[in-house]
Amino acid sequence: MAPQLDGYFEQVDALSESFIERLRSAVAIPSVSADEARRPDVIRMSKFLVSELTKLGAHVESRELGPQPEKPHLQLPPVVIARYGSSTSKRTILVYGHYDVQPAGIEDGWATEPFSLSIDDKGRMYGRGSTDDKGPVLGWLNAIQAHKEAGVELPVNLLMCFEGMEEYGSEGLDDFIGKEAKSGGFFADADAVCISDNYWLGTEKPCLTYGLRGCNYYSVSVSGPGQDLHSGVFGGTAQEPMTDLVRVLGTLVDTNGKIQIPGINEMVAPVTDEERALYDPISYTMENLHESLGSTTTIHSEKEPTLMARWRMPSLSLHGIEGAFSQSGAKTVIPAKVTGKFSIRTVPDMESEKVNEYVYKYVDEQFKKLGSKNKCEVKLQHAGNWWVASPNHWNFSAAGKAVEKVFGVKPDLTREGGSIPVTLTFEQATGKNVLLLPMGSSTDAAHSINEKLDRRNYIEGTKLLGAYLHYVAEEPMSNGA
Amino acid sequence: MAPQLDGYFEQVDALSESFIERLRSAVAIPSVSADEARRPDVIRMSKFLVSELTKLGAHVESRELGPQPEKPHLQLPPVVIARYGSSTSKRTILVYGHYDVQPAGIEDGWATEPFSLSIDDKGRMYGRGSTDDKGPVLGWLNAIQAHKEAGVELPVNLLMCFEGMEEYGSEGLDDFIGKEAKSGGFFADADAVCISDNYWLGTEKPCLTYGLRGCNYYSVSVSGPGQDLHSGVFGGTAQEPMTDLVRVLGTLVDTNGKIQIPGINEMVAPVTDEERALYDPISYTMENLHESLGSTTTIHSEKEPTLMARWRMPSLSLHGIEGAFSQSGAKTVIPAKVTGKFSIRTVPDMESEKVNEYVYKYVDEQFKKLGSKNKCEVKLQHAGNWWVASPNHWNFSAAGKAVEKVFGVKPDLTREGGSIPVTLTFEQATGKNVLLLPMGSSTDAAHSINEKLDRRNYIEGTKLLGAYLHYVAEEPMSNGA
Repeated sequence: MAPQLDGYFEQVDALSESFIERLRSAVAIPSVSADEARRPDVIRMSKFLVSELTKLGAHVESRELGPQPEKPHLQLPPVVIARYGSSTSKRTILVYGHYDVQPAGIEDGWATEPFSLSIDDKGRMYGRGSTDDKGPVLGWLNAIQAHKEAGVELPVNLLMCFEGMEEYGSEGLDDFIGKEAKSGGFFADADAVCISDNYWLGTEKPCLTYGLRGCNYYSVSVSGPGQDLHSGVFGGTAQEPMTDLVRVLGTLVDTNGKIQIPGINEMVAPVTDEERALYDPISYTMENLHESLGSTTTIHSEKEPTLMARWRMPSLSLHGIEGAFSQSGAKTVIPAKVTGKFSIRTVPDMESEKVNEYVYKYVDEQFKKLGSKNKCEVKLQHAGNWWVASPNHWNFSAAGKAVEKVFGVKPDLTREGGSIPVTLTFEQATGKNVLLLPMGSSTDAAHSINEKLDRRNYIEGTKLLGAYLHYVAEEPMSNGA
Repeated sequence: MAPQLDGYFEQVDALSESFIERLRSAVAIPSVSADEARRPDVIRMSKFLVSELTKLGAHVESRELGPQPEKPHLQLPPVVIARYGSSTSKRTILVYGHYDVQPAGIEDGWATEPFSLSIDDKGRMYGRGSTDDKGPVLGWLNAIQAHKEAGVELPVNLLMCFEGMEEYGSEGLDDFIGKEAKSGGFFADADAVCISDNYWLGTEKPCLTYGLRGCNYYSVSVSGPGQDLHSGVFGGTAQEPMTDLVRVLGTLVDTNGKIQIPGINEMVAPVTDEERALYDPISYTMENLHESLGSTTTIHSEKEPTLMARWRMPSLSLHGIEGAFSQSGAKTVIPAKVTGKFSIRTVPDMESEKVNEYVYKYVDEQFKKLGSKNKCEVKLQHAGNWWVASPNHWNFSAAGKAVEKVFGVKPDLTREGGSIPVTLTFEQATGKNVLLLPMGSSTDAAHSINEKLDRRNYIEGTKLLGAYLHYVAEEPMSNGA
């Protein structure tokens, strides 16, 4: 039975100006988590959410996470958790968002004050946090409000988890989620998870995101001399660490992105026909890529291999070298110790430990080939796993139907090349399906100057979040694989 | 006829404490040319020299060089030029030194106040500028004074050129020397040049230096994307400039320093038997090299090929990469434009223009092999030529005899791997033989913390400078090739 959503949708439209005012109030609080001096504003933002949620009748708790690691004089901002509805006959959906933002200043080149919502004649609402992630967070509050004022009962129990340190590594959150997902915890009865903290692939068509790549980040150090040397005095007499390092780094990947380390590509899950079929309908062109690259220096010339390379194939990037001369101008130094940094984006079914093993072995072999007396050391700096959900799960099919209802199109089924670590945390802690349901579009400039959220994305996005909850309530349990 | 030097030597010994006081006064003036705020001290140091030289009876001029390029509010320190003696029947020797010093602060790790001469029980005289180059400059003044007080006539006319910007690129000096070396100029009648601004190869045996390597410094830029990219979002879709650059840099030189660019090694002058014979007597061991490297990561395992590699063979060093991630930690950036820096130390008979030509051609070829859509640009940042003098010239044989007289050993005949650009400037401007006659030893730590000059090197060095002038006066003209 198709859910009756007309009353709810009408109420969202009727309340849209007040929803924009709610966003304006939120953007006005410069809740920059990376800036110690802004910590009181981050706290103030958490109180704003507590207050708004309380007014809506939710049960709200502000949970302290203790002092910030490595800055023990500073308290972490609280996690705001809330519950709206607790009927045992309803499904329970856990939603996540964050109320902290990236730093921003007019002096960075913003066209308008970053902490003052500024709406242009095309309905683009500029302001830090508008799309990342205050708009989506408030979308859930708006959805509750519109249901209440329309007199429509929320068809699920809604659990909320809004953190204040996402832009600074989500410090303290993993343990918190792990604890609350256990029996007796605040999130214990969640049946599925929905995260609204990423973006549409383009600007017209919504998407559901079912996968993220992982990232294993490595350093390779080559050292020899006891201190930096002058190339005039020592050039020709010492084996130079930089020569060795560059030669080793040069063997890792080729111009067309093919990883040269044996064993890596062999672990990649083959593309099934079912998966391949997901790519054709996706609204994306090579022109979109050229525009975002600012060039046509692409590896592939067609959409399908390009999206696969971005989402479901591993890649290896060389990021830079620590310890060498990196300024402009000229310096005739022979650096004594240089450390190359590179990372491998991982995908199903690559095992992180195996990747490390293959990388270590290969780098050692390549270095040995040089016959150098210098010392080479390769190590993992950090690793985060890939994540892939089943896009056939009821959590996704419900969201797909909600997109069709609100936007009149089937959503793109996408992955992301980068990582959103909290996704995997929720999946592992709850054991439930996790859906990424973005509100903003590809042009929103999260983390950049002139961040914005389009009015359409915010208002229709609020409708989408509410509609999703209705379709979730009606999905059969059978496709809960 | 061997010159009679006993009276002079005795006077040097008798005056040694006052010579050390002269050095103490000079070290106390922090004439740091790189530090704008210290410019008045640099000027003060020039006035100290003018005053001392005037007292000795020299004709002294303080020549202004005008405003400092790129800092037009700042006047360059003057060149102090002086003449002692103007007999047309005597040879005229032009000597060069500099009265400015490198920056220094106790907070850098000095064991004593850098601008206060501090003498330990082994006669090591610590202080910024002690060895580089105030000690050698004052050596010439001391030599004049000891001659005067001993009643011994100086057997040559002595021209002096002491500059105050050596540690900051000798700005303005080249043009000045060029002008003064011309007919009618202050240096017009110079018969040979002597520069005391380098160091013995070790600590026991003096050396005469007859060659310097040149340096051609290059940058290779690879660019593609319009701006830096995130490796999560774009890894696998864009051809990465860093991958291309590292692959190109990896083809330039191998671990054992062999330059891979065709044409370069082919230009190197063959080693003659006469030249080879110069190496065996040189007081130098692999242990000396290991000590200065702080490691045993050498290319060669024996003295002769090591010294040849340092002095008379080209070398290629990779200095670093501009535009890539160079900090500690981890950043998942794909840099949009990266610029590798490398330099080639040049030797006889390499032609600078040919070297450029071969480098450009090779880098282009290596980049083309990659089949990349990125753009690669290689260019010369700066070039300075190699210099080799004839160690058979009377200027050298006179200095060799002076070393034997003062120290009782034949000097090492050495080259330097690095460059002292003013050497070539003097040779080209005057057309005369240039000798590098160092006073300090290899452990003096010029440019480092705890710079020092040993009392022995200063006092016996003063004797050496004076003795050199006597032997110069007696050398036959015949070996003036």
